[in-house]
Amino acid sequence: MASVAMNLAFLAMYIHRRYFGGGRSDNNGSGKEITTVEPSKGKPPVTADSVVNLDHGDPTLYWEFWLGTGDRATVVIPVWQTMSYFSDLTGFCWFVEPGFERQVRRLHRLVGNAVVDGYHLLVGTGSTQLFQAALYALSPADDGTPMSVVSSAPYYSSYPSVTNFLNSALYRWDGDANTFAGDACIEVICSPNNPDGGIRKGVVKSKSVKTIHDFAYCWPQYTPITEAPSHDIMLFTVSKCTGHAGTRLGWALVKDTEVAQKMIKFMELNTIGVSKDSQLRAAKIIKVVCDGYEQSPTSEANRLFHFAQRKMAERWSRLRTVVAASGIFSLPDELSSYCTFAKQIVTANPRKHHI
Amino acid sequence: MASVAMNLAFLAMYIHRRYFGGGRSDNNGSGKEITTVEPSKGKPPVTADSVVNLDHGDPTLYWEFWLGTGDRATVVIPVWQTMSYFSDLTGFCWFVEPGFERQVRRLHRLVGNAVVDGYHLLVGTGSTQLFQAALYALSPADDGTPMSVVSSAPYYSSYPSVTNFLNSALYRWDGDANTFAGDACIEVICSPNNPDGGIRKGVVKSKSVKTIHDFAYCWPQYTPITEAPSHDIMLFTVSKCTGHAGTRLGWALVKDTEVAQKMIKFMELNTIGVSKDSQLRAAKIIKVVCDGYEQSPTSEANRLFHFAQRKMAERWSRLRTVVAASGIFSLPDELSSYCTFAKQIVTANPRKHHI
Repeated sequence: MASVAMNLAFLAMYIHRRYFGGGRSDNNGSGKEITTVEPSKGKPPVTADSVVNLDHGDPTLYWEFWLGTGDRATVVIPVWQTMSYFSDLTGFCWFVEPGFERQVRRLHRLVGNAVVDGYHLLVGTGSTQLFQAALYALSPADDGTPMSVVSSAPYYSSYPSVTNFLNSALYRWDGDANTFAGDACIEVICSPNNPDGGIRKGVVKSKSVKTIHDFAYCWPQYTPITEAPSHDIMLFTVSKCTGHAGTRLGWALVKDTEVAQKMIKFMELNTIGVSKDSQLRAAKIIKVVCDGYEQSPTSEANRLFHFAQRKMAERWSRLRTVVAASGIFSLPDELSSYCTFAKQIVTANPRKHHI
Repeated sequence: MASVAMNLAFLAMYIHRRYFGGGRSDNNGSGKEITTVEPSKGKPPVTADSVVNLDHGDPTLYWEFWLGTGDRATVVIPVWQTMSYFSDLTGFCWFVEPGFERQVRRLHRLVGNAVVDGYHLLVGTGSTQLFQAALYALSPADDGTPMSVVSSAPYYSSYPSVTNFLNSALYRWDGDANTFAGDACIEVICSPNNPDGGIRKGVVKSKSVKTIHDFAYCWPQYTPITEAPSHDIMLFTVSKCTGHAGTRLGWALVKDTEVAQKMIKFMELNTIGVSKDSQLRAAKIIKVVCDGYEQSPTSEANRLFHFAQRKMAERWSRLRTVVAASGIFSLPDELSSYCTFAKQIVTANPRKHHI
């Protein structure tokens, strides 16, 4: 969240006004008027006088796509449904809604961005909570020394604060993975990386390293899908996939049973499971995404990732135009690869960026 | 959750079978057949061979009431709604849905179980998360010694584990408040108390004591409402009020602005806010509860607290019958008071109990 994120359009407007004296009739250089309406009732609409907030992003960019899907992804929850704490006492994780798990596994099989067979699926209140559950699960409980948590710089600005805010004796933030000199540690690998969009691999060479792969941005609109990874812990979030940040729903694919059980324990102690309402809604939304590809593949209006990829490309193009004209900032070069999902060469459009 | 809780009926069945050799045609002594159908798809229906699980309760007891309310409390969430992280950037807490806040304040005014004017309202993923947010907010960050957290024994079995599981240097569980000999501490006051249903006041006399009032069971079905308390931090949860444990939604009424801001900070770092879907659903459910009393007060079918009070009284009566017949266990005496909500003398029917 603490990033420029989806605010590329606002940034473009700001740079344009700041360096070219653009007035009230903002224009992005292509002759097209920039108009944005915020679907969040919490925020005022963007005007020519709006201030750019570089502190956080908000994935409301896909709102337009969802407006076009009519009632298909509307969720209806009768008052007597899912009253219980328990989703499935016969499953591996008692608070995962079976319908949610089914749709998430289907989505990964469709997109090809993670191996799901042989993995436990856990749900969390956003992937942030699952990140903490993973730290808890990977840190030895009986050792007096906190486990070091590292990531290659530049890293997501929230990792240090989320790791350290409770001053836990189990783990502590230890900075850049490239300069880590110790032995045992947890390395967080965010790929595509927040904030610079880079494709990352682990850098710590020690045999005692444990890894958490943060794949929040590993979706076809941000990066070409080149393989289905099969790491120990892989984190995803609805927020960056479909744009539903407000549902606060993430999931983890976890290989090791004991690690998964410890993560479940964390979730029990921290929040006694995860909102069933969010899970029901996310299951419905992900179902519509999968249906869009599997049942009517020729209709552009049903293809979320294609819509989102186009949106991201447009915003990058506008940003590149104004940044180039400013002569003050630079942006990373465009990177292209063959995407196994799109079945063509695709240019990466990272959601996060460095200027 | 770690309590006998709503399983009184199962317990009665078990005791009856265990000590009176009751066979397959279970009978609670009043000639009425005990039949229970679990609304949670995760659990098998209760049969004569069911095992009593004393580890946790599940508030599905009110399912029958909600079945009777038809579609009025059904929530419908279009896919394009509440996509944003933000609920209300103009409000005190950016992740509280204004509709949820409005209905919760209305509910407290109706029931008279907490002062709301002059209080900040925060939402959490269950009151468990807000309990941790309060520990974080009340513990001095710069002090090297963890703040002691205490509660009068017998106390809720989760307090120690939830306080200690991350081995935080900010706070640590310090046991029974009655024997606390130190100066500064956080005293947790659960009233009616889990597990014994007692009405509790703080017992630590030190001027440096900070308090958290856990009012999860402070609703008319469990205890006569005798006053509207106005403590510093008061925690409530949808789970024990309406029976919707699966929505994982709690709220806190907080007097001090700085404390409330620190609690918000915790929620940002732990889960970047709270599910909007759960908030929308809870707002709808609480609205129907309030409407039931304010718009059609003569219809019994619309009065949740009256329905729930009757249910609890029935279960206590059955439990008292079998426990008395067993001669092995004893139960606390019934306590009655004038309830300002029911406007009559009411007997307490604690959700939790000691045998």
